[in-house]
This record gives sequence, structure tokens and C-alpha cells, in this order.
Amino acid sequence: MRVKYKVWLVDEEVILGDGGYRLLSLIDKNGSIRQATAEMDISYRQAWGRIRKMEKRYKKPLVETHTGGQSGGGASLTPEAKELVKRYRLFRAEVDKAINDSFQKYFSDL
Amino acid sequence: MRVKYKVWLVDEEVILGDGGYRLLSLIDKNGSIRQATAEMDISYRQAWGRIRKMEKRYKKPLVETHTGGQSGGGASLTPEAKELVKRYRLFRAEVDKAINDSFQKYFSDL
Repeated sequence: MRVKYKVWLVDEEVILGDGGYRLLSLIDKNGSIRQATAEMDISYRQAWGRIRKMEKRYKKPLVETHTGGQSGGGASLTPEAKELVKRYRLFRAEVDKAINDSFQKYFSDL
Repeated sequence: MRVKYKVWLVDEEVILGDGGYRLLSLIDKNGSIRQATAEMDISYRQAWGRIRKMEKRYKKPLVETHTGGQSGGGASLTPEAKELVKRYRLFRAEVDKAINDSFQKYFSDL
């Protein structure tokens, strides 16, 4: 037996969950929405749909795109998105630990 | 902004989540499956379906029924179910607190 859980940050509607966190993290890592979607099972159009939805609900821009330059453009997270992603990562790690500790405490012998 | 989450105890398949916990708790409180279902939005047939599924996955009987007697019969939890429900309640309360504490720590200013 093990524990399974899902966590979301919500504000009437869901702002950020593990899926949105993963998308933003991959954009941050790759500097590109296309490369981020290649690592997830979603299309470029779906990625933008998710980003726009998160931005609308969070009420702040999260992803900005750049054109031209040596790298031929790309995408990056806004400072607000970088902060949100960083906090979500720490929050998620802490919640992971807390839930697993409680699970061990109450159910490890079942 | 607030935090939302779901927790389940799983063993390949889900054994117990908030819905199953609520059903078992209400049977324990009311001593009757019918009265338990009256407090939830499910039918008697659905309740038994859920109980059988939980029992199959937990591999132990959870609910037993009684016929006759002054009260005209009823249902009660097995000792194993009482223990499981008790632990789930404590586990859930601890997880509630941990998640909300972490949420406050990381997101209360956003």
C-alpha cells in the first residue's frame, strides 16, 4: 500500500498544478516552448493554451518570447513565473515529505 | 489563492480516498448503510458497489450486516475497517495541517 495525492494552487479556478509546473519548468530549462512540448505529450498550440489560462488566472504574464538574435529566438519565464516555479518546487518537496512521513506513521504496518 | 489537494491510499488501484472514508464513517456513525447513503448522494446499490470494491482491494471484509433484533438489523464496520477509518482520519488531519502550513509558508504573500 502507498499514498497517492494531487495538489493544486487554486483561486476559484486552478492556477497551478503539477502539469503547469512541469510546462513552466521545461520552458525555463530549454528556453523554448517547442522544446518543452517535445518533452511533454502536448502540442505547441496546447502549450500556449495552458500558458494563457495560467496567466489569466494568475493575473500576471508568465512566459515571454523573443525573436531573432544568434539563437533564432526562444521563450523564457518572467521574473514572476520564475519565482512561482521556485516556490512551487519547494512547496511540492515539503508536501511530498510531509505526506509520505504521515503515511509511514499511520499505514506502514498495514 | 489557496491550496487544493486529493489524497488516496492505493495498492495498484485506489483502496481508500475521501469518498470511501466518508461512506465507512457514516456507516459507523449510523449503524446502517441506508442511513449512510441518505447523507451522501449515492444509492444503496452504489454504496454496496463501493464497499465491495474497497474490500476486494483491501483484501479484508470492511462492513458486516446484521438482521433481526430490536433495531431490525443494520450494518457495522469490522474491527479492521474501524482501525483503517481511525488511521485515515488521523492521517488526513496531519496531511491537512502539513499542506496548509507549507502553503502559508510559500504562498501567503502572493
